[in-house]
Amino acid sequence: MSDYKSVSELKSIDPEMAVPFRGIYILRRKDSRTAKNGNPFLSLELGDSGGSFTANAFGDSPVFETINPAAEGCIVRLSGKTEYYNGRFSPRLQAAEVIEAAEAEADGVLGQLVEVPPEPEDELWADLQEGIAAIAHTRLRETVQRVIDETETHFRTAPAAISMHHAYRHGLLEHTVHMLRACRALLPLYPQVDGDLAIAGVILHDIGKLEEYEGDFAAKTSRSGTLQGHVVLGFRLCRKAAIQCQLNNDLTERLEHIILSHQGELEWGAAAMAATPEAVFVSMIDNLDAKMGMVQRVLRNAAEGDEFSERLAGLQTRVLLAPPDKS
Amino acid sequence: MSDYKSVSELKSIDPEMAVPFRGIYILRRKDSRTAKNGNPFLSLELGDSGGSFTANAFGDSPVFETINPAAEGCIVRLSGKTEYYNGRFSPRLQAAEVIEAAEAEADGVLGQLVEVPPEPEDELWADLQEGIAAIAHTRLRETVQRVIDETETHFRTAPAAISMHHAYRHGLLEHTVHMLRACRALLPLYPQVDGDLAIAGVILHDIGKLEEYEGDFAAKTSRSGTLQGHVVLGFRLCRKAAIQCQLNNDLTERLEHIILSHQGELEWGAAAMAATPEAVFVSMIDNLDAKMGMVQRVLRNAAEGDEFSERLAGLQTRVLLAPPDKS
Amino acid sequence: MSDYKSVSELKSIDPEMAVPFRGIYILRRKDSRTAKNGNPFLSLELGDSGGSFTANAFGDSPVFETINPAAEGCIVRLSGKTEYYNGRFSPRLQAAEVIEAAEAEADGVLGQLVEVPPEPEDELWADLQEGIAAIAHTRLRETVQRVIDETETHFRTAPAAISMHHAYRHGLLEHTVHMLRACRALLPLYPQVDGDLAIAGVILHDIGKLEEYEGDFAAKTSRSGTLQGHVVLGFRLCRKAAIQCQLNNDLTERLEHIILSHQGELEWGAAAMAATPEAVFVSMIDNLDAKMGMVQRVLRNAAEGDEFSERLAGLQTRVLLAPPDKS
Amino acid sequence: MSDYKSVSELKSIDPEMAVPFRGIYILRRKDSRTAKNGNPFLSLELGDSGGSFTANAFGDSPVFETINPAAEGCIVRLSGKTEYYNGRFSPRLQAAEVIEAAEAEADGVLGQLVEVPPEPEDELWADLQEGIAAIAHTRLRETVQRVIDETETHFRTAPAAISMHHAYRHGLLEHTVHMLRACRALLPLYPQVDGDLAIAGVILHDIGKLEEYEGDFAAKTSRSGTLQGHVVLGFRLCRKAAIQCQLNNDLTERLEHIILSHQGELEWGAAAMAATPEAVFVSMIDNLDAKMGMVQRVLRNAAEGDEFSERLAGLQTRVLLAPPDKS
Amino acid sequence: MSDYKSVSELKSIDPEMAVPFRGIYILRRKDSRTAKNGNPFLSLELGDSGGSFTANAFGDSPVFETINPAAEGCIVRLSGKTEYYNGRFSPRLQAAEVIEAAEAEADGVLGQLVEVPPEPEDELWADLQEGIAAIAHTRLRETVQRVIDETETHFRTAPAAISMHHAYRHGLLEHTVHMLRACRALLPLYPQVDGDLAIAGVILHDIGKLEEYEGDFAAKTSRSGTLQGHVVLGFRLCRKAAIQCQLNNDLTERLEHIILSHQGELEWGAAAMAATPEAVFVSMIDNLDAKMGMVQRVLRNAAEGDEFSERLAGLQTRVLLAPPDKS
Amino acid sequence: MSDYKSVSELKSIDPEMAVPFRGIYILRRKDSRTAKNGNPFLSLELGDSGGSFTANAFGDSPVFETINPAAEGCIVRLSGKTEYYNGRFSPRLQAAEVIEAAEAEADGVLGQLVEVPPEPEDELWADLQEGIAAIAHTRLRETVQRVIDETETHFRTAPAAISMHHAYRHGLLEHTVHMLRACRALLPLYPQVDGDLAIAGVILHDIGKLEEYEGDFAAKTSRSGTLQGHVVLGFRLCRKAAIQCQLNNDLTERLEHIILSHQGELEWGAAAMAATPEAVFVSMIDNLDAKMGMVQRVLRNAAEGDEFSERLAGLQTRVLLAPPDKS
Repeated sequence: MSDYKSVSELKSIDPEMAVPFRGIYILRRKDSRTAKNGNPFLSLELGDSGGSFTANAFGDSPVFETINPAAEGCIVRLSGKTEYYNGRFSPRLQAAEVIEAAEAEADGVLGQLVEVPPEPEDELWADLQEGIAAIAHTRLRETVQRVIDETETHFRTAPAAISMHHAYRHGLLEHTVHMLRACRALLPLYPQVDGDLAIAGVILHDIGKLEEYEGDFAAKTSRSGTLQGHVVLGFRLCRKAAIQCQLNNDLTERLEHIILSHQGELEWGAAAMAATPEAVFVSMIDNLDAKMGMVQRVLRNAAEGDEFSERLAGLQTRVLLAPPDKS
Repeated sequence: MSDYKSVSELKSIDPEMAVPFRGIYILRRKDSRTAKNGNPFLSLELGDSGGSFTANAFGDSPVFETINPAAEGCIVRLSGKTEYYNGRFSPRLQAAEVIEAAEAEADGVLGQLVEVPPEPEDELWADLQEGIAAIAHTRLRETVQRVIDETETHFRTAPAAISMHHAYRHGLLEHTVHMLRACRALLPLYPQVDGDLAIAGVILHDIGKLEEYEGDFAAKTSRSGTLQGHVVLGFRLCRKAAIQCQLNNDLTERLEHIILSHQGELEWGAAAMAATPEAVFVSMIDNLDAKMGMVQRVLRNAAEGDEFSERLAGLQTRVLLAPPDKS
Repeated sequence: MSDYKSVSELKSIDPEMAVPFRGIYILRRKDSRTAKNGNPFLSLELGDSGGSFTANAFGDSPVFETINPAAEGCIVRLSGKTEYYNGRFSPRLQAAEVIEAAEAEADGVLGQLVEVPPEPEDELWADLQEGIAAIAHTRLRETVQRVIDETETHFRTAPAAISMHHAYRHGLLEHTVHMLRACRALLPLYPQVDGDLAIAGVILHDIGKLEEYEGDFAAKTSRSGTLQGHVVLGFRLCRKAAIQCQLNNDLTERLEHIILSHQGELEWGAAAMAATPEAVFVSMIDNLDAKMGMVQRVLRNAAEGDEFSERLAGLQTRVLLAPPDKS
Repeated sequence: MSDYKSVSELKSIDPEMAVPFRGIYILRRKDSRTAKNGNPFLSLELGDSGGSFTANAFGDSPVFETINPAAEGCIVRLSGKTEYYNGRFSPRLQAAEVIEAAEAEADGVLGQLVEVPPEPEDELWADLQEGIAAIAHTRLRETVQRVIDETETHFRTAPAAISMHHAYRHGLLEHTVHMLRACRALLPLYPQVDGDLAIAGVILHDIGKLEEYEGDFAAKTSRSGTLQGHVVLGFRLCRKAAIQCQLNNDLTERLEHIILSHQGELEWGAAAMAATPEAVFVSMIDNLDAKMGMVQRVLRNAAEGDEFSERLAGLQTRVLLAPPDKS
Repeated sequence: MSDYKSVSELKSIDPEMAVPFRGIYILRRKDSRTAKNGNPFLSLELGDSGGSFTANAFGDSPVFETINPAAEGCIVRLSGKTEYYNGRFSPRLQAAEVIEAAEAEADGVLGQLVEVPPEPEDELWADLQEGIAAIAHTRLRETVQRVIDETETHFRTAPAAISMHHAYRHGLLEHTVHMLRACRALLPLYPQVDGDLAIAGVILHDIGKLEEYEGDFAAKTSRSGTLQGHVVLGFRLCRKAAIQCQLNNDLTERLEHIILSHQGELEWGAAAMAATPEAVFVSMIDNLDAKMGMVQRVLRNAAEGDEFSERLAGLQTRVLLAPPDKS
Repeated sequence: MSDYKSVSELKSIDPEMAVPFRGIYILRRKDSRTAKNGNPFLSLELGDSGGSFTANAFGDSPVFETINPAAEGCIVRLSGKTEYYNGRFSPRLQAAEVIEAAEAEADGVLGQLVEVPPEPEDELWADLQEGIAAIAHTRLRETVQRVIDETETHFRTAPAAISMHHAYRHGLLEHTVHMLRACRALLPLYPQVDGDLAIAGVILHDIGKLEEYEGDFAAKTSRSGTLQGHVVLGFRLCRKAAIQCQLNNDLTERLEHIILSHQGELEWGAAAMAATPEAVFVSMIDNLDAKMGMVQRVLRNAAEGDEFSERLAGLQTRVLLAPPDKS
């Protein structure tokens, strides 16, 4: 463990003392303000997977120079001194440096900056590639491969959903690969479903989320995410690749239909109700893995001894955490 | 008035008599069946704006030869003899001929085949063209013009909604031009709304319906209407034209957004909620003209002396038909 | 093919002729009436998987003697003469005999009396038994085995849902075994789910339907089905067996919870929201197989050449029937 | 700019300093309390369009004497010294004076006390009067004129909706006049709508809000607002004037119906669904201007450089603030 | 029993015979039509509590002379001959006479014309008067008495809800008196409820239905019923009487509030949510007696031997008809 | 009045002073934590009916020894010194003792620890017993008596619903007895309802809440409350007693049905819709008394001079508190 302090460690320091510290945090929010004396300053929110704090960077400081041009969502290495202002932790900043995710990983703090799934990214990625390879129809496989190749960097790290406090790195990749495994396990049971289309649909169903959100760590909805939504954005990515790969019209329309209908209900954002065997199948597996993913996450994060989790909005109840008594 | 009998005229003939007749009807439904003796026959539903009847065409008859290859939704000139079967009007068919809409118009029965709006198609069309000409931004205007030019034939006659019994010829054109007029009347009052975008959005908002429905007279949902829906189909038509006309990205995305959001609520099929001044504006005008169109239609079709219309599902009440007493 | 006439065959006979016939039908409805002359008669509805007709049995006839004591839902072998009354097919009955399902099967008409799934009942049953055997925990396995043993006769034939016209023989068994296969295929992917509990929950989740419906062929809701519902009825069956098999409290409560929560939403009849990994898992698989079962059924029953099925209420759309173009 | 400090200016003063200040604020809330020593004191909330703060006035102080008899919602000119208590701004009050809105206007702070629309009140009022004059039917015009004359003082300043923090002075007048303009612009397009009735209905549709809310600045629901609601209250005002002006029954009932139905849906408070051409028309224009008013407000209040507004509950999305790129 | 034939008796006559008959029926519907030969005729629907039939009255017949000026909903004494037309009972009419309800009662057929509650009207009416007398507050009692006196004739016979087939004579009186009894029985248990106001509110809560419906027997919604609804109509009747009786403002507003809020939910037509103890109390008793009234009606109308009623929309289930086994 | 300080008294002490105090509170929450120095400490939330505060108990203190083994929801007698930490009241604890409810009652603070209804528990209990005695059917009466006898201790004190801040001691008993009185007052008016069953159903309808919640004072949902819900838990208690008392099947099923259906709507947790006269009756009385209970509670707790209560979620409005003006 490095000497970098996490947010919860910072907050457990005696408020009456001014302790020097170093830490690596995500810049969640950056607002330009003007002080009473007319000088500019930045009001910042910095955080990691365990919480966040606010701090100011004044116009004549080196921290201001560094942070002013930085984008929300970047990673910052800070040094400063702990301080409370009106009873709220708000440290005095002394130096700042914008760093890459790779550096944070090298410093061993990436895992504490953002929540990550338990399976290594590379294993998930290999499974995804194997899924693509299993598509027998050449042009369909090429269509999927083209979309994935073009979005690889982003796809590997993007979250599957927005969350201000726990941006869930690799979440989209994890969810997609879990659905892929479920899809391949179930295909022999539902021979009415075309396996090639189902696999292609699973892999691309949420691809529009790569454009719906922006910022790897402090994910927020992008302009096109608001104006079009991930369903239409995914439809566009998929359609473009299908045309480039000369996929025939029938398969193109069926693949697009899986993306357009996978949300399941119009009020959840589906553009059409699932109307092919493959679209019904993918939409049901999406729902199953989304719900099971919530269960897996609360089990993973459960504090020892807790009988139940907090109430989960997505399940409309709390989850029993204790394992069954198999005696 | 020709000697062609409308459906309601046919049905008012004394059931005990077998009267020869001629008529022009839409072929609403055509099912292939096999009789007990193994011979093929067609079970047909034929109708006009006032009702429909069923009849059979047997495999060895000239009517069978004519109707068998015809598409549902075509227009048929028939001759036959009135007849009742198990208490249901089901005439004996003697001759049939598939004709074009133009012939039906020449015979003066088009208006009784399908309901048409009171304004002449050509006046509505001229107003639409004038609306396009009013778009100041060159590439935006060209984008709209291109879509309209490519779809003119269909756009002039398509209904604005599906209805088995009252396919409403020119309905889409009428609704679009009525919205266009309302839009132009309101623009001076809402200067925050960009007039070019609003006009373009109004003209193209329902363009996907040209592909969502098929058959001019006996409109039904097409394959792509079911798999994609008119919102996505319209988005595609608009996007293609915008690219061909080199419309800039900002205007393209805003125009697409109007189409994607005009349905107003996700559960009514919107892919995104209206998030630009123009999209909110067009979506509200769409709602206003849709409701006012229902009012206009029941006033137009009201029987003399009726105080109220039937209950309209779209208004959740019946409409008071009598004019106000301005004495 | 026997000389027994199906309902649709009866109705295709020339209405002007009085043709003698024999047939085997389900007695769907039986109402006692009194004729103008004061004599009693029975108004009957008889049907098979392709339709139904009504007929009267008068108080002094042998058919009256036979049918009067019979229960709705029984199978009747009839002979009579075709006849129409006020334009409606209503044959004159000459002889009737109540027979067992086994006789109908022997006569080769059971399949036309009611819709059956494509897989043989015995194969489905063997799979169910193998699923029970796969439960490692002895008392849990014994609990499931006890419930299944006690209900075998009924479980083998009961429908999974009520349908006046297409009572779906073996439907519950088919749905349960399909879920069982899906469950076992997915268990390796979700190690947080206890396999024993999940398998037991799948097998028993709908067991209350055996008491919710009555009548194998003309299924209708029973008294306890109305007053308690299948969720509570299944809970009771399961609880009783668990106590008899001395299953420990923890497993008993978890198994009961799967049954109480499998409907997914309170307004669909769930008594509690799924709150264990196994309950979430079973409830999602139930939803997946129910939707896929609708798809499989419309594909199985599709008329050749139809592009789409009728609109399915359960999917809120129609289903594309044509296979993908894999060229 | 006066030396009166706004709330946000007060809060930006260094918390460690006790700075004397003067200010004019609305008395939002006043609660009588008893201190530990048995002495009475007032707990006050004071605010302007930019925020609010709490302060105490103790029983033996001149501020207590002044504020104790004042009504919530009045305007107070204060002097005091800045102070923080447990980290919350809570100034020490030294002198207070209740003043009229006119004085606050003379002091140039009315605009910072409450949000006001961009158009001058007198121009909006003149437009309203011109609208009344445009009603051709004498008694209908007199009915509208009578209601407006009797409520003028209140109508000129009342908000169109309740908002604790941004009571929106003149909001009702602005919304009514904007609807009036839209109504008059659209009337030529919908000749089925009686212009006199539509104009009268637009002007009076929300008149009941004058009795539903109380307090110009800190608007809250009145007793009759809770017990009857603005729809019934408006109906009563309108009915009384119609009787006094001897308006005939038909027009009276149609005018009342516009008020009773303008909310559009029963669950939004409509007493009846719109069932006349005029009622449908007014209800749709109300919806259009309400939504466009939200858009106009966020554009007006947008901080420079912001791409999107906050999410608006009324539009279920955030609004794109940047103007289109018309290059 | 008279020799008048009820509808169900008419329909049980042998269709092949032309039997002369006499009967007394309600004129449910009367449409003016023109025959092929240009002559006018009336298409009539006539019915009683057990069903209805259609018949024609031709322009040159005495029946036409009698029925043409009659209002829908009147009572007609007919003579004619049974006849079937295209398989539907449609008798030939020979003579007709419009009669008063009193004559129908004298002929002993009123009870078969419309459904009536089991308690005699006069007993119900006496209970209502006793309820009014129990109101201690003089002006409140006078207000209620005035409304009831002015509407007595109508109140005694009006139905409590619309139903085409079973207009339920005295239904409003029965429901009001049942609520009155429940109210008086419960008042001692809820001393927070003012008894005078609660009794007054119960008696007047549905008074607007007297103007919402028209026609004693074939009740349909009136013009003001559609444009204002029974809640506002009742509010007006009550307000007018309260002013005439000089009831103080507080009691007037509370009485009006009970009427405005008794529907319970805005989407069921309440103008305001119940916000006084009396309004909550009356609204709950209304709901209780409405549901219990449905139960009482199905028990009253149950056929002997039926275990369950049909499914009732208002209860969302069917009702168990058999009495409990108290052995 | 003792010298024990209530929470609101503690919070009104001058924050700048460290005042010694004694008090009796409920232990609402107890979390084990580890301090920076590695020592364990407890973070506690303590409260009474007027509020709550947090405090820490460190590992080496006698308070830690006492509280560490105590259960959430117990009663604690504390002494300490007032103190503020970061502007939040967080006293220093010096001694603690877990005591029984009886001791708190002896100390005269039970009433301030938790809200209690105005009627004495023993009177309510006597009424409940009298209700049981009024059941004429021996085995039904014995069934009810058995359930009540077995749960008496808990039934006397349990709340009728969960509320973190105002656990409502005796709430279930109060609600049950109020319903019982309403039931007995209404029974003569609805003779279709079997009185024995209705009384039994009222008394047992919420009996499952005794197992759904745990902790008398800081009520929270139990494990079986989450996994089964109070409807199924009550069904089990009732069924067990019915079997032990040899109640016949018909009455058992009807009594169970009242419990299963009393919630009124499936989405509110009913397992079946009320389908017997008794179940409809009990479910309506439950709704009436629940709503009237909310009214009674806000009237009881109203501050003098308040015109309206706060908005109540259960009534969707605020309640008028002032009594009617009966002058």
